[in-house]
Amino acid sequence: MSKENKIPQATTKRLPLYYRFIQNFANDGKTRISSKELSEAMKIDPATIRRDFSYFGTLGKKGYGYDVQNLLAFFSDTLNQAEATKVALIGVGNLGNAFLKYNFRKNHNTQIVVAFDSKAPLEGNIVSDIPVYHPDRLEEMYEKYGAELAILTVSSRSAQAMADRLAKMNAKGIMNFTPIRLTVPESMKVMNIDLSVELQALIYLIRNSEH
Amino acid sequence: MSKENKIPQATTKRLPLYYRFIQNFANDGKTRISSKELSEAMKIDPATIRRDFSYFGTLGKKGYGYDVQNLLAFFSDTLNQAEATKVALIGVGNLGNAFLKYNFRKNHNTQIVVAFDSKAPLEGNIVSDIPVYHPDRLEEMYEKYGAELAILTVSSRSAQAMADRLAKMNAKGIMNFTPIRLTVPESMKVMNIDLSVELQALIYLIRNSEH
Repeated sequence: MSKENKIPQATTKRLPLYYRFIQNFANDGKTRISSKELSEAMKIDPATIRRDFSYFGTLGKKGYGYDVQNLLAFFSDTLNQAEATKVALIGVGNLGNAFLKYNFRKNHNTQIVVAFDSKAPLEGNIVSDIPVYHPDRLEEMYEKYGAELAILTVSSRSAQAMADRLAKMNAKGIMNFTPIRLTVPESMKVMNIDLSVELQALIYLIRNSEH
Repeated sequence: MSKENKIPQATTKRLPLYYRFIQNFANDGKTRISSKELSEAMKIDPATIRRDFSYFGTLGKKGYGYDVQNLLAFFSDTLNQAEATKVALIGVGNLGNAFLKYNFRKNHNTQIVVAFDSKAPLEGNIVSDIPVYHPDRLEEMYEKYGAELAILTVSSRSAQAMADRLAKMNAKGIMNFTPIRLTVPESMKVMNIDLSVELQALIYLIRNSEH
């Protein structure tokens, strides 16, 4: 799948979204869709959709549109939906707690299997059905529960130290909710989500459109 | 400021991040920085930084780098940091609760001033120092508290109806945490943050780099 290594990150981020909308169309009994219909449902312009799809070869025919079942099979395969991913949550504060309670319930291929918090006892306790351990047991329990990646919702001052420990364990990726830009080995993927930054960007868009 | 209307959304999203890092450099007593130093701190490649900055005219000199105080003044002005933004939170479930507790404390120019939840009584109650009202009073209280934009953390089935009511009130923007793609008037800005989708994109990046 060397071709896919070249697809832009913006396209990558839209893949799960395409998959969800195509599932909706399939559930509604649609057998084929145009990029225009997909565009209207997803609020993404049709040229972007056609360009995104072009990275994956010929998924559609001109004047016909896209076969819903073909797309479904393609995205399911591409996103490895068959293979469940086990996730460790590090930091059970306000946001971490929300993640534990939510735990991707509508997303059957992803699951938080273990959590860590500095206030948890060494022997662990249970929050929202998930075992929570003290970070002293991170290496042991991350491996025991078979976690592949971590959601990082710790304080800024602990973030890099946790990332270093995850790197030593060969964790594959971090979804980073701290405002710290983490230094990690090339082999590790990091996705940064900074809610304050997103909100400020929205405010900037609003203020700027008022001129 | 018509020129700024043309800057790409990806650049816009990085502005608050630049601002924060430049503040850090200023706090450390630095008076000038190169795009390379900024690049290393922010983990963004230097070419991207130079291209981003080029949208705003000559901020730096070749061979000299950027003057930290100049940058600080520029970004502070551009991001309207002087002007506080009042935000309404709609939906006080798990994620909404995390927002109320956090309330952008380190971000003095943004504040959740009022919240709404279908479980709240009509007369309202107080959660984490913020008044929470029943959505029946959305229009009245949104105006009374002077909210300019809304964070939407309601269920999928209420999302579009809430967006319609916000549009009728001429709300300026929505930070949308629901998986629904909202239909809103052109004048309204929407920023979508779908945590499941972000996590799936990270998993895709990991799986894809394993080939």
